[in-house]
Amino acid sequence: MSARPMAPPDLVSLRRSLLWDGSSGSLWILDQTLLPHEVSVRWLPGADAVVEAIATMRVRGAPLIGVCAAFGLVLAARQADSDETLEAAAAALRASRPTAVNLPWAVGRMLAVSRAVPGPRRPDALLAEALAIDREEVERSRRMGAHGMRCLLETREARTAGTGPLQILTHCNTGWLATVGSGTALAVVYEAQAQGVPVHVWVDETRPRAQGAKLTTWELQQAGIPCTLLADVAAGHLLRTGEVDAVLVGCDRATAAGDVCNKVGTYPLALAARDNQVPCFAVLPVSSVDWEVAGPDGIPVERRDGSEVTEVVGLDPEGRRTRVRVPPDGVEAVNFAFDVTPARLLTGLVTEHGVFPASPEGMRRLLAEERAGLQA
Amino acid sequence: MSARPMAPPDLVSLRRSLLWDGSSGSLWILDQTLLPHEVSVRWLPGADAVVEAIATMRVRGAPLIGVCAAFGLVLAARQADSDETLEAAAAALRASRPTAVNLPWAVGRMLAVSRAVPGPRRPDALLAEALAIDREEVERSRRMGAHGMRCLLETREARTAGTGPLQILTHCNTGWLATVGSGTALAVVYEAQAQGVPVHVWVDETRPRAQGAKLTTWELQQAGIPCTLLADVAAGHLLRTGEVDAVLVGCDRATAAGDVCNKVGTYPLALAARDNQVPCFAVLPVSSVDWEVAGPDGIPVERRDGSEVTEVVGLDPEGRRTRVRVPPDGVEAVNFAFDVTPARLLTGLVTEHGVFPASPEGMRRLLAEERAGLQA
Repeated sequence: MSARPMAPPDLVSLRRSLLWDGSSGSLWILDQTLLPHEVSVRWLPGADAVVEAIATMRVRGAPLIGVCAAFGLVLAARQADSDETLEAAAAALRASRPTAVNLPWAVGRMLAVSRAVPGPRRPDALLAEALAIDREEVERSRRMGAHGMRCLLETREARTAGTGPLQILTHCNTGWLATVGSGTALAVVYEAQAQGVPVHVWVDETRPRAQGAKLTTWELQQAGIPCTLLADVAAGHLLRTGEVDAVLVGCDRATAAGDVCNKVGTYPLALAARDNQVPCFAVLPVSSVDWEVAGPDGIPVERRDGSEVTEVVGLDPEGRRTRVRVPPDGVEAVNFAFDVTPARLLTGLVTEHGVFPASPEGMRRLLAEERAGLQA
Repeated sequence: MSARPMAPPDLVSLRRSLLWDGSSGSLWILDQTLLPHEVSVRWLPGADAVVEAIATMRVRGAPLIGVCAAFGLVLAARQADSDETLEAAAAALRASRPTAVNLPWAVGRMLAVSRAVPGPRRPDALLAEALAIDREEVERSRRMGAHGMRCLLETREARTAGTGPLQILTHCNTGWLATVGSGTALAVVYEAQAQGVPVHVWVDETRPRAQGAKLTTWELQQAGIPCTLLADVAAGHLLRTGEVDAVLVGCDRATAAGDVCNKVGTYPLALAARDNQVPCFAVLPVSSVDWEVAGPDGIPVERRDGSEVTEVVGLDPEGRRTRVRVPPDGVEAVNFAFDVTPARLLTGLVTEHGVFPASPEGMRRLLAEERAGLQA
């Protein structure tokens, strides 16, 4: 474990959810369990701290937890550079959350380097690989934003009333807090802002952990993008009454058939979008695709503690961070963190390689692009 | 305004959300804004107090607020028995909430009596009519429960795995707290219990006001019926993974075409049920049908204050009832209280006259039955 470095970096100004400080060799995160009520930059001294941060959702978002796990293996290699240490850390990191495939994907890349570069050069090789994953994900965010923006402009063309800001509805948090770049679905919104296209974002609160209410509204507020919060299930009414031009969501794991496992609630949202002919896009990097899974039933859906449903954290009237219990004592809750949206309900998948149909054929084309590299 | 009577009746033991105490001529309600954290029986001394109780949702549920408004006019007639007083009270009661049609329905019945019986006999005639509405709604609840039970038994026949309790999913609160009888959708569950059919209820928490988490779980707990709470949007995952045998919901206003306006979230829930071939029934008395409205766009959908979305009330770790704010300061929320489920998504409408298809033809048959009276 490295010594505690002096001062935490200002991650909010940098718009970085995670930062490797090369001068001190230290890993820093923005603790997302405390946002928006408290901005706390947290030092992760070792792989155990990384596992804890992922499991408790101090860091969350499929792309981000992949990158975070990669740096966790850098820290593990510095702590004790044995094969056993690294393999144990890799197993713990893989198991820290079950659904997002970016986690095993990033761990797999790091282990491949570890096996290829044994001996004293290994720690540096692992750091180089983690930094490469980080850089690539930043670039993938940028490209997803640009490709998604083309979808938005086509959506705007199709509007009967072409005036007023584009009305985007989103679920959960898919911005810079969920990635190391500008985001996945929210990267598209940021790109619209960069291009001067007025946008208003309807933000699903995203029960039970309220990533929409707590994180997405906070990000959009920071960026000066107008937004309005809503109860998740009110999205259906907004869609039915014509208040939404496009739905943009992220993805924790996509199948080789184009099905999308994402934050619970994405499936009913996609049903409501389809029922009202509103385009619904999932925005994801290729690192979120599980090429081993052929259909919607092959994805392990994380079941978290029921207390996330029965208890809510917010600020009391005196401004103190407080946890309140809503139902009567003795009532238990089930808490599925994700659901699976069948490919048939999605208008398309926005990726760093372009926009693809959510279908086995679309996914084959995406894989071919990925294999051809990011040179395009 | 009548003098405050001595002791409040024990409404919880009586399983009554509202009670007219004939000996003292006083109206009592269970204050539903405080449940489940506090059981408070509240005296409503006059029509103004009834308006306030309906608007702030101390009483809620379409059938209940209709009955409550009827007694509000009894109180108005006792306060000052002039046509002007009664008409003003009727207007205020009608306007106290916009969506449930039971409110104007009950007020209309009371005004018809008021016009037919002027003079000193009017207060007694109004009381007799309010008590008749109350009695009828109790009987309608009983019949809805019995008819809905037939649907459940058919559903059980259709199960491939015919063992284990019937798995019912419901939204909002539709039990004795929402009516003056045993409920609408929950009346069916109570009927199952009475017939010895094992049932387990999946309870949508029902954001933003948490009527599922606060009221339905409390009712079921009191009745000893097993239930599990869930985030509203997790219902899609439960339906997709085969955990639900039938969806039962209430109704605030049905159209003459069989569309159902109900608590926000019913529409995406019905979409998810349809997508998975799970039967989805709305359970409603005829008093919830608006025969003047022909389709889903003719219903005024109440928009309530955004603070109901941004703030949550529960018990803090010390057991104090506390309100916490979830999103950052400055974030506004939109708050539609209802949505409209098109008739095409409903398996049927369970009413006191039987089960009808959700269609203009089905509604015509329902109206014919209602006109033929409750003699059946």
